[in-house]
Amino acid sequence: DPKLKIFALNSNKPLAEKIAEAVGVPLGKISVDRFSDGEIRINIEESIRGDEVFIVQSTSAPVNDNLMELLIMIDALRRASAATINVVIPYYGYARQDRKVRSREPITAKLVADMLEKAGATRVVALDLHAAQIQGFFDIPVDHLMGAPLLADYFLTNGLEKDAVVVSPDHGGVTRARKLAEFLKAPIAIIDKRRPKANVAEVMNIIGSVDGKRCILIDDMIDTAGTITLAAQALKDAGAVEVYVCATHPVFSGPAIERIEKSPIKEMVITDSINLPEDKKIDKVVQVSVGPLIGDVIKRIHEHKPVSPLFKNRFH
Amino acid sequence: DPKLKIFALNSNKPLAEKIAEAVGVPLGKISVDRFSDGEIRINIEESIRGDEVFIVQSTSAPVNDNLMELLIMIDALRRASAATINVVIPYYGYARQDRKVRSREPITAKLVADMLEKAGATRVVALDLHAAQIQGFFDIPVDHLMGAPLLADYFLTNGLEKDAVVVSPDHGGVTRARKLAEFLKAPIAIIDKRRPKANVAEVMNIIGSVDGKRCILIDDMIDTAGTITLAAQALKDAGAVEVYVCATHPVFSGPAIERIEKSPIKEMVITDSINLPEDKKIDKVVQVSVGPLIGDVIKRIHEHKPVSPLFKNRFH
Ligand SMILES: Nc1ncnc2c1ncn2[C@@H]1O[C@H](COP(=O)(O)O)[C@@H](O)[C@H]1O
Ligand SMILES: Nc1ncnc2c1ncn2[C@@H]1O[C@H](COP(=O)(O)O)[C@@H](O)[C@H]1O
Repeated sequence: DPKLKIFALNSNKPLAEKIAEAVGVPLGKISVDRFSDGEIRINIEESIRGDEVFIVQSTSAPVNDNLMELLIMIDALRRASAATINVVIPYYGYARQDRKVRSREPITAKLVADMLEKAGATRVVALDLHAAQIQGFFDIPVDHLMGAPLLADYFLTNGLEKDAVVVSPDHGGVTRARKLAEFLKAPIAIIDKRRPKANVAEVMNIIGSVDGKRCILIDDMIDTAGTITLAAQALKDAGAVEVYVCATHPVFSGPAIERIEKSPIKEMVITDSINLPEDKKIDKVVQVSVGPLIGDVIKRIHEHKPVSPLFKNRFH
Repeated sequence: DPKLKIFALNSNKPLAEKIAEAVGVPLGKISVDRFSDGEIRINIEESIRGDEVFIVQSTSAPVNDNLMELLIMIDALRRASAATINVVIPYYGYARQDRKVRSREPITAKLVADMLEKAGATRVVALDLHAAQIQGFFDIPVDHLMGAPLLADYFLTNGLEKDAVVVSPDHGGVTRARKLAEFLKAPIAIIDKRRPKANVAEVMNIIGSVDGKRCILIDDMIDTAGTITLAAQALKDAGAVEVYVCATHPVFSGPAIERIEKSPIKEMVITDSINLPEDKKIDKVVQVSVGPLIGDVIKRIHEHKPVSPLFKNRFH
């Protein structure tokens, strides 16, 4: 049987360490740094000939650097005769550029998929892709994991599912809200944003009952936190007792932290798919780890077992 | 006949403007900026359906950002039905990672070539690739231009070829030195670096006569300027009257500018293949433009004429 090896690139080493611990192997020896002019220099410092290799890398900011690290690492592994090259991408950057909304736009999420395959990836493990269709951008197997069970665990463990209503911040996220609501055995509500006229502020209509309830807003990612903090305020105005937010990916760009601090959000539960720098680890933000989940997935792949039971059996 | 369009990305707009001027067309309308999280957003603001499109982009520092801009632009052009997508890469980043020197190294120069082709490039125009073999990394046509005639022009115009000897800073660069020496009708010399024992400083032996001469060192790029400034000092120590340096690509990373300032180099002649920020434009450095040359090449490609006569007829 080929040996299982896990390598961490630079974007999310703490998560890679948790994954390796869950699998029960040490991280592979590698050095990833820069030449004087900023070009990436990668040195794999142990033989991987014939091995089943997993690389852990989120393509979060700085997205282009993290993506190139990943591509160059795949190239090096392929040329060094790895048996399989499995790329674990907890956060898949450029996922929102997954279709042409206007003329002459790129579809960068597909470009990235093509680059990964051309470089030599043989399998992708991803978590809550912005659109599930991105799986179809690949011709190689994709294991698409979901963070909802972990987020649900947090609310259940803390008894927060009582009197709760799960709220989707927009009509595109209703399926995601439904899933969490099933786990929590809670009803759902939807925020329906409408712009009455051009150049007039959006109005947030709430569909469903939130008065006197604990609201749990769910989204796939929190980027600038604009929508989600406005949604939290709208829920408060509509009589919500408490507003929680959960999301898989803490992108937290621009004014995100300031907005979250100032908002009526009581707590925001996110995963460690993206490594947060110290100044973004604020009291209101609770991080749950996807390390054990991804570790289980890697073990199942190594043992040629299906990955889906990890989700199916969780709440039944 | 398809319309000729030239677009500039962000790495070297001054050169792109010179190229467009030489061709006699305005630069195409485009906006290339960033989303809040640092992801690249490209908008092509005019129709390019059925057109012969040229993109000007050097993959100089920040190399990963500049490369991704180029790949995303190619993707957008392909999806918008450009007839041909010609990428003009005056400086090709990652060119030094063109072979495995040690085990388990990537060959990033080939990876970049694969990415460009997979994205949809149909032709490459490059200038003094670190190794001519990089042409073979592509399956699409590559026009490989040389800067030597332009650098030679500078010395000839200023009467500096008299009493000159062209010097290669290492044994790998002798062919390049020979070419310049032919243009200048000057002899050549070679610096032969040898390390007498491990962990002992290199000794620079000069092969050929430089005493009482004007030395013109030539290299393809100046990166940290370590080798070239030591070479200049060695030539001075061997009796050179003046030391000039010429090179196509001013990478100028790390301590380069400081080293050049302090060195006995009288003047360094480089091209504008890489756009220099103001603090790297020092008195000793003279920039000659490759804009008119690349403009001529684009016109010849558009007119289905061979590109090579631009070089062949120059000094005969
Ligand atoms: N990194 C990004 N940050 C913000 N918006 C983006 C980003 N990438 C793509 N978009 C835009 O987000 C929209 C798609 O988002 P969505 O409708 O939520 O799938 C498209 O109009 C994209 O232009
Ligand atoms: N950006 C870079 N800066 C400095 N050295 C590099 C860079 N990229 C590759 N190299 C190294 O340069 C060597 C090749 O240079 P050369 O022998 O001049 O072709 C290889 O050993 C590479 O590891």
